[in-house]
Amino acid sequence: MADRIRSDAGANSRRRFMQQAGAGSAGVAAATLGLSMQEADAATAPAFDATYDIVVAGSGAGGLASALFARWQGNSAVILEKAGSIGGTTAKAAFWYWVPNNEAMKKAGIADPKPDFLKYVARLSNPQGYDPGHPRYGFTQWEYDMCSAFYDSASPAAELLAAKGALPYRHVADVPDYFAELPEDKAPKGRVLVPKEAIPSMADGGLVAVRTMSTKARQEGIPIRTGVRVTKLLQDKSGRVIGVEAKDELGATVRLRARKAVIFATGGFTHNVELRRNFLNGPIFGGCAAPSNEGDFVPIAGALGAQLRNMNYAWSCPIPLEKAIAKDGSISGMFSVAGDSMLFVNKYGHRNVNEKLQYNELAQTFFEWDGAKAEYPNLVRIAIWDQRSQQHSASAEYGRLIVPPGTDDRHVIKGATLAELARGIDERFAKYAGAIGAARLAPEFLTNLQAAIARFNQFAKTGKDLDFKRGERVVEQLFNGDVKDEPGRSNPTMWPLADAGPYYAALVVAGTLDTKGGPKTDTNGRVLDAGDQPIPGLYGVGNCVASASGRAYWAGGATLGPIIAFAYRAANAAHAEGRSAA
Amino acid sequence: MADRIRSDAGANSRRRFMQQAGAGSAGVAAATLGLSMQEADAATAPAFDATYDIVVAGSGAGGLASALFARWQGNSAVILEKAGSIGGTTAKAAFWYWVPNNEAMKKAGIADPKPDFLKYVARLSNPQGYDPGHPRYGFTQWEYDMCSAFYDSASPAAELLAAKGALPYRHVADVPDYFAELPEDKAPKGRVLVPKEAIPSMADGGLVAVRTMSTKARQEGIPIRTGVRVTKLLQDKSGRVIGVEAKDELGATVRLRARKAVIFATGGFTHNVELRRNFLNGPIFGGCAAPSNEGDFVPIAGALGAQLRNMNYAWSCPIPLEKAIAKDGSISGMFSVAGDSMLFVNKYGHRNVNEKLQYNELAQTFFEWDGAKAEYPNLVRIAIWDQRSQQHSASAEYGRLIVPPGTDDRHVIKGATLAELARGIDERFAKYAGAIGAARLAPEFLTNLQAAIARFNQFAKTGKDLDFKRGERVVEQLFNGDVKDEPGRSNPTMWPLADAGPYYAALVVAGTLDTKGGPKTDTNGRVLDAGDQPIPGLYGVGNCVASASGRAYWAGGATLGPIIAFAYRAANAAHAEGRSAA
Repeated sequence: MADRIRSDAGANSRRRFMQQAGAGSAGVAAATLGLSMQEADAATAPAFDATYDIVVAGSGAGGLASALFARWQGNSAVILEKAGSIGGTTAKAAFWYWVPNNEAMKKAGIADPKPDFLKYVARLSNPQGYDPGHPRYGFTQWEYDMCSAFYDSASPAAELLAAKGALPYRHVADVPDYFAELPEDKAPKGRVLVPKEAIPSMADGGLVAVRTMSTKARQEGIPIRTGVRVTKLLQDKSGRVIGVEAKDELGATVRLRARKAVIFATGGFTHNVELRRNFLNGPIFGGCAAPSNEGDFVPIAGALGAQLRNMNYAWSCPIPLEKAIAKDGSISGMFSVAGDSMLFVNKYGHRNVNEKLQYNELAQTFFEWDGAKAEYPNLVRIAIWDQRSQQHSASAEYGRLIVPPGTDDRHVIKGATLAELARGIDERFAKYAGAIGAARLAPEFLTNLQAAIARFNQFAKTGKDLDFKRGERVVEQLFNGDVKDEPGRSNPTMWPLADAGPYYAALVVAGTLDTKGGPKTDTNGRVLDAGDQPIPGLYGVGNCVASASGRAYWAGGATLGPIIAFAYRAANAAHAEGRSAA
Repeated sequence: MADRIRSDAGANSRRRFMQQAGAGSAGVAAATLGLSMQEADAATAPAFDATYDIVVAGSGAGGLASALFARWQGNSAVILEKAGSIGGTTAKAAFWYWVPNNEAMKKAGIADPKPDFLKYVARLSNPQGYDPGHPRYGFTQWEYDMCSAFYDSASPAAELLAAKGALPYRHVADVPDYFAELPEDKAPKGRVLVPKEAIPSMADGGLVAVRTMSTKARQEGIPIRTGVRVTKLLQDKSGRVIGVEAKDELGATVRLRARKAVIFATGGFTHNVELRRNFLNGPIFGGCAAPSNEGDFVPIAGALGAQLRNMNYAWSCPIPLEKAIAKDGSISGMFSVAGDSMLFVNKYGHRNVNEKLQYNELAQTFFEWDGAKAEYPNLVRIAIWDQRSQQHSASAEYGRLIVPPGTDDRHVIKGATLAELARGIDERFAKYAGAIGAARLAPEFLTNLQAAIARFNQFAKTGKDLDFKRGERVVEQLFNGDVKDEPGRSNPTMWPLADAGPYYAALVVAGTLDTKGGPKTDTNGRVLDAGDQPIPGLYGVGNCVASASGRAYWAGGATLGPIIAFAYRAANAAHAEGRSAA
């Protein structure tokens, strides 16, 4: 509901906002001058500090792209960013973006027909209901429509961003989808693009994308205001969203008018403990989403009656326990579980997982539940490696646990022997007891660990993991990282651990890149109410809204590909809205 | 928002409603006569068909108890039931109710101190965050307060219901909690009550409770209107809930005024496929909740901005696939997986579970995910038994798969040999392919099944299941059901399967008793908005609102104990509300 109360700080804050917003851009100044009060109903109208056609919340890929697409249609736009710096989670990403049937594929002669694409995503996103003979392959109408819209719009969106110089790309033709071996995947390679200027490892792709997109945004006259947290939506009497109320970094209230639409792209709820606990399908300890991703859009849209969907799943990945507990904003998901002479065991000393599983799938194995003991036996896993992996597989990229000298290694436990290592591990468990359900190492841990290493070493000698098939899938080798060269071996993901120390360990838990549930939107990003009707003037894009991907992580870039596609669709739909009467 | 439009059918429906409501009860007639229109604002006020202090939606235990408790405080009340008959899921339950520190325990000298009780529930409901040294044992404030309120009010509620003759009980002193062996459980037996007149097996407890409570309700002048589905809440200009709009069985709209409060007790979302898919922590195929439990309260309260909590968990139990697919309203959860010469395998022929795990925990094992194959390997499990179990363990109670002659046995597959049985199983898989992700038996099924039976039979001979510890916990023997007497054996849950047929099989999937997430309430049942403020006049009780139990099923009756406690608290708080101005 439109709020009548205007804080005392409002006038100052408004002055400050207008100065700052106008400082860098003629376009913004014009938009600000366009401010018009609701003269006819001044007593009940909120006083706005500035007016734009489109108000965007969030300055990651979804927010930047939405604002750019809207601006290129002739709209004025502003981006509000809660954090003190721009880019959100995008700035931490490698920024692969998965774009079906993209122009580079076409040039390379790689066919990617829509029905096959939809079968692949339906097979993965709804495995329990997949039906190749069903007209929507078992998808609900909404899921089908969303995936169809993604297929249709990802490439046009990517091309426009590239053509405008906001996001030039290069084709990563050799990266396979994460389930490339499934018969449903008819285009197992070719859908991945990355920012053109990313380094060869691509680890800085997100920084590049944020730089090129935000530079273009400023050139186009889109102000990006950091330290401004949107706290509520403002509606007119008919219920149409006409703006936002926000707090700036000094705590003052600012109100921005959106003549056409408000677009949220504020990320998921990775850093909201309560939402994680009450919605996700297992215990998540945090993640590499920007620390500001606290699920703000859930209560903000919830207050207007928005439906929530796909709240049970996240873009998951393992994370180091200690950085999660420390709320270290630099934390990265463990996209690459590095090392060949390396294994994971649980608190019992049992190796019970393929350590090289694709990260989203690996994280889910931490949720296994023991219904007799009433515990998560794998809540905390312990990665253990030897000097060989320490020497040859260390890297500071992609969230690897094995880090080079001089890097922050507080998560690493060292021991001259396995017994010493086990003592160190148990001390670390004790230190974090309050955060891990009072778990401690089992008395038989060391014995079982020794047996687990012996069995692993046998498998490693032959390159065949008879228990968990480590390294047998193409995606597992993709993320293997550097290992010592061993000419002639068939499986580069495995090598026996040394018989003597030093040994290393680190505690690993489940985390997220970010969550993927939130208010449901239609295929044009319009947020839907409890009756599936759009809430007029309100849009959402990216991890702050519901993804139709269910539990699946289709491929590298399956986060950012849809984000760009739906930014494009949301901006186009928002552009088409009539400007609301002031 | 209050709705101005009144359908043409309204006048007729209103007459019908008043006739029916008034027919059986002087109290209702009085309440109906109390109808008062909003004279001052007639143009915008909804026209109400009848007025009560308290309008209750749902006629299961939560609704009946809420209405009774409110009535005994002097309020007029009505119960609206969507289904054609009363009782909801309660009518299908055994109606154990778990009442901590109850009067029967006190008489028997069983101590049940509150701190120990809270430790036990915290240990189970938040295993990953349990901390015995924490002031709230790792619970959030809300979880702690809710469990504390349950402890405080369950016994007073049970006593009042008993004293008034609405629900006389008997003490089931020998039933253990489901994790009775945990050191945190200081009162492992004694908390369970059942309706006094239930048969010895207690399977009809819910029918007895519905009968005694609804009889008392009618005696007290509380009309129970079946076939009336609440579709929306009506609010006054301040946002206070002042009534409901509903559809009667002929589709006509009726509007009921609630002078004090509306209390929802409409059950969970077991039969809402979309909500299940988008919230629960694994693939659920249905359940034994009343077929009308379609999660109505989620969108109805969502439209008013209610927060949702604990949406990821359900009161889970395995169910027979075929009754779930057929939407058989008589379906029962498999509370007792009967038979000693019986095992479960998956589509690969692997036995990978303790079949006698407590039902909530057993169901969760169906969610195990294979992240390399991108499938739920245990999505459909196959129960297999021989003639011995068929003869000695058949029963029509507690959802057993092994049913006696003359009972509906369409879920049973028969084979003279294991090979013939396997063919029959695969045909059944093929028949349901569209509902089970196109799963079929693996080529190696029969070979693996034979190996699984051989290994199981070895274990059964010694009574020691070296793989899954079947039968080792007290709760597993509690639900073992009838088995052939074998004097001297140590483990009554296991016996070797016969070397020759006939053999029997049935397909089993995960299901629910009902879900346990929904709008968040405070400890008095008041529904909370996105800012944790009560939505004035709106209450919720039972499976339609969020349980603080997380994933846990503390004990038999852990559903109904809290339902009665919170019905008592909600009714008392609703009673204390001032009557809203007409």
